[in-house]
Amino acid sequence: MKLGMIGLGRMGSNMAQRIALGGHQVVGFDLNPQARKELEAKGAASADSLAALVAALPAPRTLWLMVPAGDITDNTLKDLLSLLAAGDTVIDGGNSNYKDTVRRARIFAEKQMDYIDCGTSGGIWGLTEGYSLMIGGEKAAVERARPLFEALAPAKDQGWGHVGPVGSGHFTKMIHNGIEYGMMQAYAEGFSILKHKSEFALDLHQVAEIWRTGSVVRSWLLDLTSDALGKNPNMSGIAPYVVDSGEGRWTVDEAIALNVPAPIITQSLIERLRSRDDDSFTDKLLSAMRNEFGGHAIKSE
Amino acid sequence: MKLGMIGLGRMGSNMAQRIALGGHQVVGFDLNPQARKELEAKGAASADSLAALVAALPAPRTLWLMVPAGDITDNTLKDLLSLLAAGDTVIDGGNSNYKDTVRRARIFAEKQMDYIDCGTSGGIWGLTEGYSLMIGGEKAAVERARPLFEALAPAKDQGWGHVGPVGSGHFTKMIHNGIEYGMMQAYAEGFSILKHKSEFALDLHQVAEIWRTGSVVRSWLLDLTSDALGKNPNMSGIAPYVVDSGEGRWTVDEAIALNVPAPIITQSLIERLRSRDDDSFTDKLLSAMRNEFGGHAIKSE
Repeated sequence: MKLGMIGLGRMGSNMAQRIALGGHQVVGFDLNPQARKELEAKGAASADSLAALVAALPAPRTLWLMVPAGDITDNTLKDLLSLLAAGDTVIDGGNSNYKDTVRRARIFAEKQMDYIDCGTSGGIWGLTEGYSLMIGGEKAAVERARPLFEALAPAKDQGWGHVGPVGSGHFTKMIHNGIEYGMMQAYAEGFSILKHKSEFALDLHQVAEIWRTGSVVRSWLLDLTSDALGKNPNMSGIAPYVVDSGEGRWTVDEAIALNVPAPIITQSLIERLRSRDDDSFTDKLLSAMRNEFGGHAIKSE
Repeated sequence: MKLGMIGLGRMGSNMAQRIALGGHQVVGFDLNPQARKELEAKGAASADSLAALVAALPAPRTLWLMVPAGDITDNTLKDLLSLLAAGDTVIDGGNSNYKDTVRRARIFAEKQMDYIDCGTSGGIWGLTEGYSLMIGGEKAAVERARPLFEALAPAKDQGWGHVGPVGSGHFTKMIHNGIEYGMMQAYAEGFSILKHKSEFALDLHQVAEIWRTGSVVRSWLLDLTSDALGKNPNMSGIAPYVVDSGEGRWTVDEAIALNVPAPIITQSLIERLRSRDDDSFTDKLLSAMRNEFGGHAIKSE
């Protein structure tokens, strides 16, 4: 197949390479000329505008979007709508909110264009290990793009699947990330307790390595955690400040909308907010209340 | 080596077999004659009393305890103390509370016997896949027992390690189980949200299979979860009632004692309590309060 890849950041660039390695032709586009150059250096073609990208593809065209969710995705899709023709397919492989995806797919459907959502997991390791792909869309459209999914996945018949209608791919990826929040938090809390048990002077990297084989908590995240603990056992130079990029919030919203209690996923998001609240008004007020009713000392700033 | 294995339940029996497969001689003891017979059928020897077991081993003896934590462990150790001699070694491979372990080790040390704690993970899969072993004790004693650990682990140099002084093995295993609670809860909540999103009619087994390769949430627990969802996608016949066997409680106690916030591990334990609280007084009282201040309807029993 010949594919247009829009967005050549960490994810898009690696995915373009993996698709090319799978025997397909890839033309990449990114607003950043440096990103285009780097892709060309890896043997793929590039285009210097969306119009040039679309012109470089034979009809019916297939375009893969790998840009940040939200406005950038909306703006890119708006530009594409004026460039594409009936029969073309757009695949959004980013972390879009599934509600946006459903809305966007309707606009494309009106123009007889296919819209596929592909939740993509695998991070920077995907180039070598393959990506896990959760795909939503019309069956015929998904089948036409099958060679791309087979090239991106860890194996032709592994790690990818057509899970349901448009939106269901991003929905499934959103929940995947919610689970990821909970798993990460569980490991981090456990290692923190081990770290604080000073009388045992535990070597956290050794413990992680022991757990990596045979234990019930073995996982790919544990492999990465062990690597991090080996390189930097005391987490030196790393601020205790954890960013979230939105999918946890959406998962919590969705759980509440569906009346599904998801306390661990919810609390894992809250803990990230907590990590950034280094001047907590809540804590100050709690301290003031203790002083009011019990005369307990307040720690001053 | 020649080893006495005390306790031939699911864990002890499998471990005795794996040690025997590693080229060692195992004599097993269990109060239940059926368990002894089953071990004999698998080619190992058995003894019909603790005294007979001790008599069957050459000095210095090595005995591996694989019995339920608490009173049964204490009673077995008390009996052993009167049968063993200076220079013998007892290894507690069960899920004992590390504080009990430290206390027991002191008693053995007074009699010049060695006491080793071995936190053991791997469940019923350990026989074929090997066990993950977290070992606490004196260095010389642990070195003498090394052939046993090498036989039980997934590989000679993988999945086991001497992590610190007596007690640290059970401590590390306790935290392992706390992490396990959190991971399990994160997966279960995520799949429950997917399940409740009826408009997408997701196939949970398919999603789990997709995630098993390439995704960030891939893990051994996910492999097992996928297997369970494949066999029984609607969890038919399974009550929503989750047991806990103590290690989660101890982890929470320890986190609080060390002033380490561990909200996810804590909440995962609470969720298990919640699953068993099918006549919640709290919920009744909440409903009554809403009625008191707002006249909101109470759902009757």
